[in-house]
Amino acid sequence: MEVKFELEGVLGFSRDLSAVADRVKSVFEDSKQLLVKGAPKGKEDEAARLRRWEIEGNKLRVWIESGRYVRAHDALLRIGKALSSELGRAHRIGLREIGAPTYTIVFSVGEIPSSVEPELRKLGCEISGGQIILRLTDLSETDIRGRMVDRLVSSVEQLLQPSVVQAKEEIVVVRQSKPREHRFTTDPFEEAVKRGWIVEFPGRGQWIYLHPYTALLRALEEIIIERVARPLGFEEVMFPKLIPLEVMQRMPGYLDGVPEGMYYVSPPPRDPESFENFKRQLKLMKRISADELRKVLKDPAYVLAPAQCEPFYQQFSRKVVSLEQTPIKQFDRSGWTYRWEGGGVEGLIRTQEFRRIEFVMLGSPDDVAELRGKVLDHSIEILDDLEIEWRVTEATPFYMREGTRETSTDPRKVATYDLEVWLPYKKDWLEIGSYNVHRTKFTESFKIKEAKGREMWTGCCGFGTSRWVVGFLAQHGLEMEAWPELVRQKIRQMGG
Amino acid sequence: MEVKFELEGVLGFSRDLSAVADRVKSVFEDSKQLLVKGAPKGKEDEAARLRRWEIEGNKLRVWIESGRYVRAHDALLRIGKALSSELGRAHRIGLREIGAPTYTIVFSVGEIPSSVEPELRKLGCEISGGQIILRLTDLSETDIRGRMVDRLVSSVEQLLQPSVVQAKEEIVVVRQSKPREHRFTTDPFEEAVKRGWIVEFPGRGQWIYLHPYTALLRALEEIIIERVARPLGFEEVMFPKLIPLEVMQRMPGYLDGVPEGMYYVSPPPRDPESFENFKRQLKLMKRISADELRKVLKDPAYVLAPAQCEPFYQQFSRKVVSLEQTPIKQFDRSGWTYRWEGGGVEGLIRTQEFRRIEFVMLGSPDDVAELRGKVLDHSIEILDDLEIEWRVTEATPFYMREGTRETSTDPRKVATYDLEVWLPYKKDWLEIGSYNVHRTKFTESFKIKEAKGREMWTGCCGFGTSRWVVGFLAQHGLEMEAWPELVRQKIRQMGG
Repeated sequence: MEVKFELEGVLGFSRDLSAVADRVKSVFEDSKQLLVKGAPKGKEDEAARLRRWEIEGNKLRVWIESGRYVRAHDALLRIGKALSSELGRAHRIGLREIGAPTYTIVFSVGEIPSSVEPELRKLGCEISGGQIILRLTDLSETDIRGRMVDRLVSSVEQLLQPSVVQAKEEIVVVRQSKPREHRFTTDPFEEAVKRGWIVEFPGRGQWIYLHPYTALLRALEEIIIERVARPLGFEEVMFPKLIPLEVMQRMPGYLDGVPEGMYYVSPPPRDPESFENFKRQLKLMKRISADELRKVLKDPAYVLAPAQCEPFYQQFSRKVVSLEQTPIKQFDRSGWTYRWEGGGVEGLIRTQEFRRIEFVMLGSPDDVAELRGKVLDHSIEILDDLEIEWRVTEATPFYMREGTRETSTDPRKVATYDLEVWLPYKKDWLEIGSYNVHRTKFTESFKIKEAKGREMWTGCCGFGTSRWVVGFLAQHGLEMEAWPELVRQKIRQMGG
Repeated sequence: MEVKFELEGVLGFSRDLSAVADRVKSVFEDSKQLLVKGAPKGKEDEAARLRRWEIEGNKLRVWIESGRYVRAHDALLRIGKALSSELGRAHRIGLREIGAPTYTIVFSVGEIPSSVEPELRKLGCEISGGQIILRLTDLSETDIRGRMVDRLVSSVEQLLQPSVVQAKEEIVVVRQSKPREHRFTTDPFEEAVKRGWIVEFPGRGQWIYLHPYTALLRALEEIIIERVARPLGFEEVMFPKLIPLEVMQRMPGYLDGVPEGMYYVSPPPRDPESFENFKRQLKLMKRISADELRKVLKDPAYVLAPAQCEPFYQQFSRKVVSLEQTPIKQFDRSGWTYRWEGGGVEGLIRTQEFRRIEFVMLGSPDDVAELRGKVLDHSIEILDDLEIEWRVTEATPFYMREGTRETSTDPRKVATYDLEVWLPYKKDWLEIGSYNVHRTKFTESFKIKEAKGREMWTGCCGFGTSRWVVGFLAQHGLEMEAWPELVRQKIRQMGG
């Protein structure tokens, strides 16, 4: 696998360099060896090359290219050191800062296994024509010296190792719909933008959803509630979406596992006068000072709910529940779920603010496992009536990965079933729901006690309604006349 | 007005004080004058008194009480200075830190005008039996030396000046329902907690809402949509609730006016390894390090939507709209609105996470003003059918307070109508909706252009559905059989 590094670097000096341009030039000419030193024999052409440089007052801008040996950012540091020593000695000009406004790393891979694509996108990679492209901007000296880039590169390389690819592909399909013919085979996202169903929003991975996108989502939501929640006796509740860290801490695998996947929230200080500087800067200079804001705000005290079910367990925390009061069955559809996907956003499939209906339950092991199964059955019936091609796989979510995955004919023992729908334009499956039995994981971490010490389990079934819409549109297209009557009727009923 | 300050202070020293307890005692005995110096003649009993002290290893804990002269926190600083000088000289023991774990300030006012109560609560005051109580905790030395406490005290005192009270009470009632008899006169909040309709949540000003509270809220929401949105042709949309600072900056009066009223959101860093320390501390010590988190996170880049309509204007920002395409009418009910109320939370009336339906419009001045009027009319019809006592007042929201309020018979010229309902248990009105015409405020700040340069206005009508529930329960009580048929029928229809 070939890797290419292309860096635009800036070196800031204590004085204007125009008068010493010749000296800079001679440093570069004398030290060509500098950018190659250390590369293995025969691999010198994979070391670094200085392509171009320009003096801009007291700044020196350089363009460096390299292969995997003496990577461009290392070359930048070497150049900085050489110039600093030379100009310092001869002209008393000091090097003040090093930065990289842009840095692009291109991996030429050939075939990229689709199973690792999501992980690659999480790392911020673009994927295109057999290439993985990592675009970094505004790297500080700390970023460069801290070897952040090297860590990112090895993360990408690790994902591409055959063993990882293998493991990811071991998917157990336990049920599957009959195949369907799909006339619509283009990406509904592009079409939806074109038609003004969704409008761009400045926040990355966020969209403004207009009519009739919203009408479709609400119709699907309503169908799920009518055909899953009502017959199975789940009651609607409204859970907070702003989760104090002390509550989040009890969700194993989140803060201690994927803290990089959440948004953090800080309350303002109690004393309004703390904001005087901030307000003044904003009023006079029309500029938000992030530094000032950071200084003023209190410590982060919350996350935006990444799981939607946190308050369900909290509700019973340190309380005694008797199995006779169970199964307790609730569902929430009161707001957005937030996950930070790094660079890995993708149209409507992977957004950072998305809608879900979360079904949660507390009860005996048998009740929880049986309910999970029923919720899944009802979901599948809806998909069949919506004429959508689906499959169910066994999966183990990241927060259950402590043990090994159990593939079993006893559905009580399966931690997670994923419900997936086919995306014709992508020739790939998309997860639209996750049906989980947690056993005693959360009753333990939230200290929920059963009155007589009997085993009590929790479970949750998340309907990713934002993705239900994607699957629906990907298989049926955007012409409403071609949509199944079930949906059209529901939209009419709801006045949309 | 009498003011009393009660402080528990802690002075941290470089060494254990047990061996020098006698010396500490003699400092206190010698320097009684210290805590009185500076108080006006005849007011010495309103200066500070040291009530008690205790040595705990290298900490000295003191309890100080004062009136308004030589306030307890100033007395604490004086004590620190005296001890530091004495123990430093004689025993080479240094003063390391000063703090106040608890500090209570009590204003004895007699009658507290209800018009300033909300502002007092915003400052963090409790109000009870003619007293205003400010409870502060964990004050650092910076808080104490920075005169934060004095600023809070003068803010409270300013609010109680007759001129402020007067101005607040100048309310213009423009319409009012017939008075109704109210059999239920207790606080529905307490009753709702007792019955388990709502459950406490660790986040301040947040609740978990269960059945049938949620069913009631959803029923009211549905009635509003059926009877306001549908007949007036408002389309449902879904607006982001995570608002980038660059968007928020265009909302005049928010970041530059009340930045202390919002929650701020920081994304995590791109490099997952940045969290290594944080994760390690969490795993090993089961403790969240806020310091470490603060260090790792990126600068705050968003706020949680405080207005709900921000994305509406953003949707058209820098675009050209022709009046012929208008009026554009949308509504959003996709999530929570967030406002930081400092200490001013109050049951279900003033929470920090609450529900609203936001109606927004863009069009000609006549269209926008007319639509605002119609939305208000329809709202009132619903309240009449719900047998709820209401009134409409003219108000000027904080973000329109630049000019003077216009009281006018031309409804186009009124910036805001507030819709209020009567709370029998409180003998006071509660705002449940705000009906606004912004004129060109937002078309200007978001640079929305009309194709031919004609004047184009925006407007918004916020239905505070969380407060609709409070008003409904306060007037009708919690016995569902006593509720108006309109609501009971809707709840049945929705399967609740």
